[in-house]
Amino acid sequence: MIRKVLIANRGEIAVRIIRACREMGIETVAVYSEADREALHTQLADEAICIGPAPSSESYLNMEQIISATIVSGADAIHPGFGFLSENDRFAALCEQCHIIFIGPTADVIRKLGNKSNARNTMIAAGVPVIPGSKEPLYHAEEALAIAEEVGYPVIVKAALGGGGKGMRVAYHQDELENAFMTAQKESMAAFGDNTMYLEHFVEHPKHIEFQILADSYGHVIHLGERDCSIQRNHQKLIEESPCAIMSDALRQKMGEAAVNAAKAAGYVNAGTIEFLLEKTGRFYFMEMNTRIQVEHPVTEWVTGIDLIKEQIRIADGRELSYTQEDVKLTGHAIECRINAENPYKGFRPCPGKITDMYLPGGKGIRIDSAIYSGYEVSPYYDNMLAKLIVFAKNRNEAITKMRSALGEVIIEGIDTNVDYQYEILNDPDYQNGDFDIEFIADKEEQLLNHRYAAEV
Amino acid sequence: MIRKVLIANRGEIAVRIIRACREMGIETVAVYSEADREALHTQLADEAICIGPAPSSESYLNMEQIISATIVSGADAIHPGFGFLSENDRFAALCEQCHIIFIGPTADVIRKLGNKSNARNTMIAAGVPVIPGSKEPLYHAEEALAIAEEVGYPVIVKAALGGGGKGMRVAYHQDELENAFMTAQKESMAAFGDNTMYLEHFVEHPKHIEFQILADSYGHVIHLGERDCSIQRNHQKLIEESPCAIMSDALRQKMGEAAVNAAKAAGYVNAGTIEFLLEKTGRFYFMEMNTRIQVEHPVTEWVTGIDLIKEQIRIADGRELSYTQEDVKLTGHAIECRINAENPYKGFRPCPGKITDMYLPGGKGIRIDSAIYSGYEVSPYYDNMLAKLIVFAKNRNEAITKMRSALGEVIIEGIDTNVDYQYEILNDPDYQNGDFDIEFIADKEEQLLNHRYAAEV
Repeated sequence: MIRKVLIANRGEIAVRIIRACREMGIETVAVYSEADREALHTQLADEAICIGPAPSSESYLNMEQIISATIVSGADAIHPGFGFLSENDRFAALCEQCHIIFIGPTADVIRKLGNKSNARNTMIAAGVPVIPGSKEPLYHAEEALAIAEEVGYPVIVKAALGGGGKGMRVAYHQDELENAFMTAQKESMAAFGDNTMYLEHFVEHPKHIEFQILADSYGHVIHLGERDCSIQRNHQKLIEESPCAIMSDALRQKMGEAAVNAAKAAGYVNAGTIEFLLEKTGRFYFMEMNTRIQVEHPVTEWVTGIDLIKEQIRIADGRELSYTQEDVKLTGHAIECRINAENPYKGFRPCPGKITDMYLPGGKGIRIDSAIYSGYEVSPYYDNMLAKLIVFAKNRNEAITKMRSALGEVIIEGIDTNVDYQYEILNDPDYQNGDFDIEFIADKEEQLLNHRYAAEV
Repeated sequence: MIRKVLIANRGEIAVRIIRACREMGIETVAVYSEADREALHTQLADEAICIGPAPSSESYLNMEQIISATIVSGADAIHPGFGFLSENDRFAALCEQCHIIFIGPTADVIRKLGNKSNARNTMIAAGVPVIPGSKEPLYHAEEALAIAEEVGYPVIVKAALGGGGKGMRVAYHQDELENAFMTAQKESMAAFGDNTMYLEHFVEHPKHIEFQILADSYGHVIHLGERDCSIQRNHQKLIEESPCAIMSDALRQKMGEAAVNAAKAAGYVNAGTIEFLLEKTGRFYFMEMNTRIQVEHPVTEWVTGIDLIKEQIRIADGRELSYTQEDVKLTGHAIECRINAENPYKGFRPCPGKITDMYLPGGKGIRIDSAIYSGYEVSPYYDNMLAKLIVFAKNRNEAITKMRSALGEVIIEGIDTNVDYQYEILNDPDYQNGDFDIEFIADKEEQLLNHRYAAEV
């Protein structure tokens, strides 16, 4: 039975895990870098052990130090949080070798799912839809035309050695493809000296929809509904919500089943997330599986009532899931905004520094997961997420209104944040109508920024 | 339609109301005393009007100033919060005369329910149980014996002119009553020169159980389940929870119906609370009706999902209830601790002063309603409640564990608080078993305090 957990992480997720452990009667050990002596997780845990200098590579990524701290403190399990070592199969294997419970899936499963083509093959075998594409290299436009008929337009032609957009072309119709193929292949030859091409269906303006799953060691796998995480900037999620505004019950059931099948096919145990791309047509494709807790897990917690961190610990402790699929009911609507120390009006540059004054909202339907306080020094060494502001209301409109009101109350002085920028997104009519996809920020960036510039003039 | 609300209050409840209005798209006007220039409600509202010097009698109780501020600001409604003018029928009448919507019941209903004997008679007529007792004055022990048979032992004999415990005696059995009556009567003669006595059933170690009701102008009345507010010190509630640990579905239905009947009998409109004493036997008695929102309303909000402040405003705006009785489902368990600026170890003396540093917990299942911030000056002029810490979990045990964990995180520096004292209550095995009544604090005070004294030695 797990009695003492070492949290191999920092910031709000470390605090989140410490709280869950405390509520379960489990002792906690924090690890901290020299930069995090005054950090909240260092203060809140029952014990705290310094594991090295500020750079992550010398502390939060230092496997040997973390394993030593675990053994020295007598902890019987490690919770890796997200980021850092959470999806590192070597670290999970090291834990296994040292007879330390790794709160997550096995090293073997992490390794298999971490390899994209391996994961893709597993999903195909399990009948989970993946983006259809050529299985063999292509050298001639005629081959491409044949495959394109199979996978459906639009298609994207990609150089096997391509990267940075070079050797890539999208064809929306059959009569564009030959030209697209030739151009891309020429570009590839020029850039990489290679004419090997691939082709796959081009998923246009999809939503990023991910399904939370929970799986225990007894073969029980359930899903906890979806999160819409389409509001991203350079692949960094900014706003997440559950449920997705345009999700039907039928589609949820279909995607949920695919997610459960994906987890089963991978032999997955613990909490995990299956990321899909969802087309406007309702077609969806497996993207990848995240073998850890996600930043955005609170929105799922609020609409399901299920404490994901506690379930992770229970599962790792060899217990059965507390819930069946029938127990899981999505109620109301939850939205999370990530409050980052960055200045959107200066190219989103990170803004570490001291928080000289702070006020965060509270009240009905407000949850704040953070590790900051007035006087806290935001370190330049780590991720710039300061806090997660999560709201819950009985429907999406009320949740949006509540989030706008809550963002309006946030005061963080001494450093710049993206609070005003988040407010602009929440104010956008397309966002409000649920009419957005992963291109939302890219499509609207100028307009989202202009509002503020205009106000300043 | 209500477009602008003036909040005739301060502190956390003013902030709570401002947030509800903002989420409903209603403009807000704060009023503040000279001591509250830097208060959060003053800062958060769309407009703020100073209504006088620090003493409540010259500001928050100054009806003329508040009505003037309402007219000047163009607000069409006043929310009185709790305390101050919230149960003042003259103020409600003044609003009516000035064609300002008072967000609460009519002046007439406030007046009738404010008069205890009037309220008692209304309840008797409506079939709501009241504490049974003599209807006529008693002068002889034989009369007392006859009435005691009717109302049931134990009984309490009370001098008509009594007070401060003088001329009062409890009799647990028939053979004690004659002696008790004579002694009390003698005491009454000696102390008040009067031998007029009354007798009523003595409710032993009851729980304070109150039912939240909502009533609209169309005759719809629903109840939102109960709150157990038995943890009181000198009639000041300290901890409230919903549901009550020992409440059965059958009893809830019975008491809920009584509460609804009470509200109907009084012609009540808006949110209100019917307070009952509940005996271990399951018998319950009407105590009084509070014609306003209560401090402890968040615990009901969390287990029902219903926003009581928004419902109050909707009702005052002439709309129908958003919910039927069948819609109301109690889910999970919520507990509220009142964090007060007082020192339990120095006779609970109030501790106003400047909050020099502050950290309040967050995360899953934590709600904080407060109006404090780091640097805030707690005024000696007003109530010493600093914050309400509300937790929610799927059952009572988990809620208690969560509250203990959350209390352990609270940091409020510069002034004394009752946080450690609250922690001791939560740690008490009888509290944890739900085995407590309104005498809990009185019975255990020494022990609750000793723990800390012991820790200090």
